Amino acid sequence: MYFKEVELLINWIKRDAEYIDLASYGLKNQKASFEILFKSKNTIISGIKLIKEVLKEFDIKSEFYFKDGQEINTDKNIRIATLTGDAYNLLICERTVLNTFSIMSGIATKTYEFSKKLKETGYNTKIAATRKTIPGIGFLQKIAVLDGGGDTHRWSLSESIMLKDNHLNLYGGIESAINEVKKYKSFTKKIEVEVETQEQAMKAIEFDADIIMLDNFSSEEAKKVAKKIKDKNNKIIVEVSGGIRKNTFLKYADNNIDIISTGILTTEIEYKDFSMEVIK
Amino acid sequence: MYFKEVELLINWIKRDAEYIDLASYGLKNQKASFEILFKSKNTIISGIKLIKEVLKEFDIKSEFYFKDGQEINTDKNIRIATLTGDAYNLLICERTVLNTFSIMSGIATKTYEFSKKLKETGYNTKIAATRKTIPGIGFLQKIAVLDGGGDTHRWSLSESIMLKDNHLNLYGGIESAINEVKKYKSFTKKIEVEVETQEQAMKAIEFDADIIMLDNFSSEEAKKVAKKIKDKNNKIIVEVSGGIRKNTFLKYADNNIDIISTGILTTEIEYKDFSMEVIK
Amino acid sequence: MYFKEVELLINWIKRDAEYIDLASYGLKNQKASFEILFKSKNTIISGIKLIKEVLKEFDIKSEFYFKDGQEINTDKNIRIATLTGDAYNLLICERTVLNTFSIMSGIATKTYEFSKKLKETGYNTKIAATRKTIPGIGFLQKIAVLDGGGDTHRWSLSESIMLKDNHLNLYGGIESAINEVKKYKSFTKKIEVEVETQEQAMKAIEFDADIIMLDNFSSEEAKKVAKKIKDKNNKIIVEVSGGIRKNTFLKYADNNIDIISTGILTTEIEYKDFSMEVIK
Amino acid sequence: MYFKEVELLINWIKRDAEYIDLASYGLKNQKASFEILFKSKNTIISGIKLIKEVLKEFDIKSEFYFKDGQEINTDKNIRIATLTGDAYNLLICERTVLNTFSIMSGIATKTYEFSKKLKETGYNTKIAATRKTIPGIGFLQKIAVLDGGGDTHRWSLSESIMLKDNHLNLYGGIESAINEVKKYKSFTKKIEVEVETQEQAMKAIEFDADIIMLDNFSSEEAKKVAKKIKDKNNKIIVEVSGGIRKNTFLKYADNNIDIISTGILTTEIEYKDFSMEVIK
Amino acid sequence: MYFKEVELLINWIKRDAEYIDLASYGLKNQKASFEILFKSKNTIISGIKLIKEVLKEFDIKSEFYFKDGQEINTDKNIRIATLTGDAYNLLICERTVLNTFSIMSGIATKTYEFSKKLKETGYNTKIAATRKTIPGIGFLQKIAVLDGGGDTHRWSLSESIMLKDNHLNLYGGIESAINEVKKYKSFTKKIEVEVETQEQAMKAIEFDADIIMLDNFSSEEAKKVAKKIKDKNNKIIVEVSGGIRKNTFLKYADNNIDIISTGILTTEIEYKDFSMEVIK
Amino acid sequence: MYFKEVELLINWIKRDAEYIDLASYGLKNQKASFEILFKSKNTIISGIKLIKEVLKEFDIKSEFYFKDGQEINTDKNIRIATLTGDAYNLLICERTVLNTFSIMSGIATKTYEFSKKLKETGYNTKIAATRKTIPGIGFLQKIAVLDGGGDTHRWSLSESIMLKDNHLNLYGGIESAINEVKKYKSFTKKIEVEVETQEQAMKAIEFDADIIMLDNFSSEEAKKVAKKIKDKNNKIIVEVSGGIRKNTFLKYADNNIDIISTGILTTEIEYKDFSMEVIK
Repeated sequence: MYFKEVELLINWIKRDAEYIDLASYGLKNQKASFEILFKSKNTIISGIKLIKEVLKEFDIKSEFYFKDGQEINTDKNIRIATLTGDAYNLLICERTVLNTFSIMSGIATKTYEFSKKLKETGYNTKIAATRKTIPGIGFLQKIAVLDGGGDTHRWSLSESIMLKDNHLNLYGGIESAINEVKKYKSFTKKIEVEVETQEQAMKAIEFDADIIMLDNFSSEEAKKVAKKIKDKNNKIIVEVSGGIRKNTFLKYADNNIDIISTGILTTEIEYKDFSMEVIK
Repeated sequence: MYFKEVELLINWIKRDAEYIDLASYGLKNQKASFEILFKSKNTIISGIKLIKEVLKEFDIKSEFYFKDGQEINTDKNIRIATLTGDAYNLLICERTVLNTFSIMSGIATKTYEFSKKLKETGYNTKIAATRKTIPGIGFLQKIAVLDGGGDTHRWSLSESIMLKDNHLNLYGGIESAINEVKKYKSFTKKIEVEVETQEQAMKAIEFDADIIMLDNFSSEEAKKVAKKIKDKNNKIIVEVSGGIRKNTFLKYADNNIDIISTGILTTEIEYKDFSMEVIK
Repeated sequence: MYFKEVELLINWIKRDAEYIDLASYGLKNQKASFEILFKSKNTIISGIKLIKEVLKEFDIKSEFYFKDGQEINTDKNIRIATLTGDAYNLLICERTVLNTFSIMSGIATKTYEFSKKLKETGYNTKIAATRKTIPGIGFLQKIAVLDGGGDTHRWSLSESIMLKDNHLNLYGGIESAINEVKKYKSFTKKIEVEVETQEQAMKAIEFDADIIMLDNFSSEEAKKVAKKIKDKNNKIIVEVSGGIRKNTFLKYADNNIDIISTGILTTEIEYKDFSMEVIK
Repeated sequence: MYFKEVELLINWIKRDAEYIDLASYGLKNQKASFEILFKSKNTIISGIKLIKEVLKEFDIKSEFYFKDGQEINTDKNIRIATLTGDAYNLLICERTVLNTFSIMSGIATKTYEFSKKLKETGYNTKIAATRKTIPGIGFLQKIAVLDGGGDTHRWSLSESIMLKDNHLNLYGGIESAINEVKKYKSFTKKIEVEVETQEQAMKAIEFDADIIMLDNFSSEEAKKVAKKIKDKNNKIIVEVSGGIRKNTFLKYADNNIDIISTGILTTEIEYKDFSMEVIK
Repeated sequence: MYFKEVELLINWIKRDAEYIDLASYGLKNQKASFEILFKSKNTIISGIKLIKEVLKEFDIKSEFYFKDGQEINTDKNIRIATLTGDAYNLLICERTVLNTFSIMSGIATKTYEFSKKLKETGYNTKIAATRKTIPGIGFLQKIAVLDGGGDTHRWSLSESIMLKDNHLNLYGGIESAINEVKKYKSFTKKIEVEVETQEQAMKAIEFDADIIMLDNFSSEEAKKVAKKIKDKNNKIIVEVSGGIRKNTFLKYADNNIDIISTGILTTEIEYKDFSMEVIK
Repeated sequence: MYFKEVELLINWIKRDAEYIDLASYGLKNQKASFEILFKSKNTIISGIKLIKEVLKEFDIKSEFYFKDGQEINTDKNIRIATLTGDAYNLLICERTVLNTFSIMSGIATKTYEFSKKLKETGYNTKIAATRKTIPGIGFLQKIAVLDGGGDTHRWSLSESIMLKDNHLNLYGGIESAINEVKKYKSFTKKIEVEVETQEQAMKAIEFDADIIMLDNFSSEEAKKVAKKIKDKNNKIIVEVSGGIRKNTFLKYADNNIDIISTGILTTEIEYKDFSMEVIK
């Protein structure tokens, strides 16, 4: 699972200590145990499944006392995991392991907070990530969103079909864009169209769009147009996106709005401070 | 230059559109031009040299109107670059190009702000990044720090030698740690030691450490110990690190402190919002 | 486009002539032109876009007189393309280029034939490929199916969600399988369920399956169950698959059956015989 | 053994489930056993050594009840192997494992049939594959030919030297072609020349060709020329190739013809239908 | 040509300057020209074709005034080539380019010297390399041997078949070893057997070995056994190897000995001193 | 440790036996034991840690009776290691394993000899390698130098900063070169400058060079200039290099010269003859 992401982390560690990590060279072949420590309120941990696979490559045995997606709530340092192996290997893995947990848990936690607040509104609206991710590690981020209980949205361009403003401009409008795409797309795929007006939304439905993304709509406008869409065809999925912030997203919660997607989950990272110490 | 980082971005785009990006497939072999737009106050742009190399792989010609490290200061959208090529290729590169600029410019800008404020104190203390980076893209982040005028600190574990608390514990103290490392290290390298007390600092100097990193010292303590170090040997480089925040770092500016290093530059990312539009 | 597939073919050629192709070594740095010849009735050509990219890697200029998906109908050899470059490079590319056209055009042609016959029935039923492909080159095969006018079906496991018999067994039935999957799946994806009975089909619909695949149904049974499904919810896509052969597939054409999928398109390959000759 | 081919299959599976196979995600960390089933007359199985290595990468234990090259002869489903491991991993490997056996066993079986019929003629003529293989998986096909008892012919361009019509044209005839090649070739290699006339064959022998390939000769002509060759030098190996089909190859069996090579073995694939089921 | 070897050198340079070569960073985007200089008697140059391909990757234009295999004979520095490109790129390529020429030319020169002396004896005996090469760059060495006029011997284990003492021991003798190998080998390949006695040599011939390698024979013994072999079958190739040195190899020149192979060509490297200077 | 170097050796073996090693194919799945034998005076062994990792990839268990850097001193063959595994795997690893030990031990031994003689002078001058290494395996060579007790000098261009004649020419002198480099370099790095005159040396010190490399100085001149440098600033490291040979290096031993670096360690390789035999 997550093969390329595991590979990404392994290669990053190997690149970090490419020739010799001279600071640790003298500890080669000395066995050691490290503990991963953490102190924070209300953090959703993420990255365990990934890191476990990574550590295997370096012959490090790991025991974790938590599971991905679990909440950690502590005001003094607790032990998250015990790692045992060659001291040299533990030392070269240390920083990458900590950085991975810090970032993924930051994202999972933020996702969880957004999701929880949406649930509390009583509406079925869900939070989703966007493609505003960090190049190279976007899928680590999507995994963290999943661990935090959010919707990943599409993983890649190949995976699903979304017609955005630049597509519409280049194809010459919604009708020709959708018709062109239908020629090649499999029946297994949905078509999503990003619209800026109610008129565009209605046009997109007419040509069989499965998902309408209302881009940069105020919450009032979004709700109004979402209602029109659902009145016409209640199978259409309505997504709102664009300029949605921590202090505004709840206004979009509504029975006719299925998805609120925001780049905040993956770009405004709150680094959670994990640490690692030798167990003497 | 930056060969692996260019490769990282190219592979990320290829992975994104691995099979076919069906939304853009109908635009294959249609030539198009896109502009990159940006609107923000006091942003240091970073990522241009990298992105220019990436775009070549997709046969996209690019003209940029700014240089890495240059300040952009505008309150309405201005054109940063013009890109010309196959419409399909432009569309699959769009999001990765924007995300790269957004993140790297965010980092360069923050580095520049820290650096500027330090300069204004009149002391020679410089800002530096740490190894709290994002796995896989840590070197993109270091490049952005460089573009923002900060010190990259060491790039990798192999590149330089730093003895941290876990090393000292495992080697059994500063003396044996430094002596062990001296057996293998080349004359071309410095030895840095992370210390938690003045006593450790003095011990490290005694055994020829080139750089002393004062970890988690209050600004007063840091200054006091730094003075002791410099009094003993003014060639020693003094670095402070640990728990230094946006509102506290200036307190560490001092004639005896050469470097303030902080993970904030690379972990508290402020995403700058670039966009890309078809030029009709 | 098709980045990994282009890479696959390039690497295959480089592996073929890994050290030195001694038979051609003496022709290095001699410029030559080759023509690709073809003689066949009613063949849909496929592979041109791929091969053009491959040849670039070897500095071979290519001019093609046909387009992917075009029908070639000739009873004597005609020139498909002219290739010009280093004689050594032309010779090491020759066999892989020919093999690629031979196989992809064989698949495109078969797909076209199935598709054409289905169209002639007047029903909207479409032909699709399955995952019975050849490991390593499955996506070359999907591209050929697309060029032949067929539906590719899903490209990879990650791309879409299909619950098959082994899934249902392991999850403990349709209800728990679908409910589990809903926890992780994005709103951008459909759920397809493979069923062996009408009862299973109705259960899958009840739990919001988007696509029902009727596995190994006789044409009569398939039509009967398809009608039941569409009567209940005409948005559901109905696919039939399993044991469908060249001489039976037309029986499944029906207003309530959207897709006939068959492994024949990608496993019963008819090799089309292209050849390449020096132009003197 | 077969390192790159094992890698090819592993990468294919990892690419198939690159992000997450959502259909199987809920079964992660659940142990399961699957059986591979097969029902067919007179099939030579091939692919076991390869697949065993592939499964190791996914921590799947496999027990096989047959060996590569063994004949399977059954009219009801029998169990070929038992696989045990993580249910998620088993499910993502399923299709690739089956497709590999289906194709390799199809090729091994056809090779065996050709080979058996040749043996029954009483002549020593052997069947061999050609370079009409499927790009990317040509060596899987060669392995299957070996398992079926055929001659693989050369594996790659670098491996051996064959001068074909395009070479002869470019070098300006057999004499200059062979002389050029002799300059670079090691004493460890043979030279094979493809000829279209008896005159060419005799010329090739004169200049020390080790193998003569008679291209597109009728069986009568082939036998006649083969005799001339052997009369001149009975160490020369005689191969016939070109346009040889299932219903004509036996006519070429002859004491003076050592090898019949045909692309049929690797291009006219008969897919054998293996299946995999959960063992409850 | 030499795809993997070109890749090896490119990757080596990229690894050398992986992050940033800080010594040259300030010269980025400054155009410069460098000359490659050389001063030596009787050197055969090798590496030009390879290096030309490598330099392309770094957008460096190169003009060479010599060809691989050509003799350079000068007692003052002469210009071998002019390179033009980005100063940064020239500087990071400099050392690898020089090292490649130094080593490959050293090998080509030594091969040429051995070969020339053998020719002067009037016998047809030829010099060949062995598998005592340097891991990772063995094929660069084989190319240099070719440029020096030597026989490369086999390139890889897959390429040809040689039964050595360990094989014979494990198979249980020459007869069973050869018979086993014949089951799998293609008619396109030869079988070579390493022998330590005349008896073994005769046995190997009996079972159709194509090449006999006399291992560690004195020159007198070698000539005697070679004559026996040729008397029996003059098509058999006779190779001598083992313990052959610069001052002894000529003694093995003989009408019945086809090949003298020695590890000296690739293990006793004489580094030729090329240099590179900025052209002002 | 040495991840890329282990990978290099593994890939070299896999490339060597890429398809099938037919000579060993019949021994697949037969268990065997081999011993590594060695006979030589005063050899420092190197390569054990690397080879142990390599053998793991091929499921070969190894027991070594020596450690890297240990001296072997024997006039008859002694057993260095016992290897146990699949006979096929042992046979394909044999030559690469032997070649690695032969070359690395040759380098370690030469380094040890130089180092020992320097120690005997009573001065603190140390021996170091240069960048005259063999492309692709330069880091294997550096590891061997380390095992022999020498200084590796810098590993790569990125690792440290050295301004050589071409840099000085392109930057327009020492002052501008050092000033430019200071803009980008981290405080963790030293600056080394290569000089050809005393004047240049003094200039370099003035602008804060950490290391001065005296290039092509006679031993008298070198000692004279080294004294001047140390008199000015005894923290500066003085290195001599250029044209230093086996019979001249000792003349450079001096209290003011810290390092003698020479390409001889890595370019004048003395191959040590290890062998491997089946244990019956």
